[in-house]
Amino acid sequence: MKISHIEHLGIAVKSIEEALPYYEKVLGLKCYNIEEVADQKVKTAFLKVGDVKLELLEPTSEDSTIAKYIEKRGEGIHHLAFAVEDGVANALQEMEAAGIRLIDKAPRPGAEKLNIAFLHPKSTQGILTELCEPGQ
Amino acid sequence: MKISHIEHLGIAVKSIEEALPYYEKVLGLKCYNIEEVADQKVKTAFLKVGDVKLELLEPTSEDSTIAKYIEKRGEGIHHLAFAVEDGVANALQEMEAAGIRLIDKAPRPGAEKLNIAFLHPKSTQGILTELCEPGQ
Repeated sequence: MKISHIEHLGIAVKSIEEALPYYEKVLGLKCYNIEEVADQKVKTAFLKVGDVKLELLEPTSEDSTIAKYIEKRGEGIHHLAFAVEDGVANALQEMEAAGIRLIDKAPRPGAEKLNIAFLHPKSTQGILTELCEPGQ
Repeated sequence: MKISHIEHLGIAVKSIEEALPYYEKVLGLKCYNIEEVADQKVKTAFLKVGDVKLELLEPTSEDSTIAKYIEKRGEGIHHLAFAVEDGVANALQEMEAAGIRLIDKAPRPGAEKLNIAFLHPKSTQGILTELCEPGQ
């Protein structure tokens, strides 16, 4: 697997509307896209810092994994997403061969027109890890 | 405050020796520096992904804040560090004026010859946030 850079950091927030003033007015970053990802039951807002996106994740349903995350651990960094150069499908094969537990067995569509797959934090040093490639 | 990029992600690990094979052999990143920060009671290991460093933090004492963090929340992403272009001291003044709770009232020396200061996660959307500038 060849990682080129951190594609984004996923950040769990209760409300994008309430969180954005901190990111925009205090930190001075700019939100350039708000998008709903229906199958993940989240609304997402994107800001950019250098080459890395911050992806704010607001649950749109009580049974969203983000709602459960916030209930258990509070708001904060939810996942770390790497951009891979040699394809997410290849990377997943390689990860599985290395004994890494996969959440997604195959790439699926994510926000920002990416193909994505998640690795389980139990085998990635406690960090929910996403692999991404341009897609769709 | 002008943030140029994410300087690093701080990642709490029980043991750098046990964590490094995942980062190096599985993810394919390379550790380029290991350093002890005595006043923070941690040993640190640095890897680079694009423009962003991953800073693995291993506690060197049971009363290290990293040891307490791992005990409470497990291994994982501990803090998010931004590089600021207009100086950490200026940024702290600006943050305080914006009602942000400061952990450090003034910049202090950190790893990798940076001057650093932390903001309290209670006022930064749940994310322990560090500001950095080249120093020393």
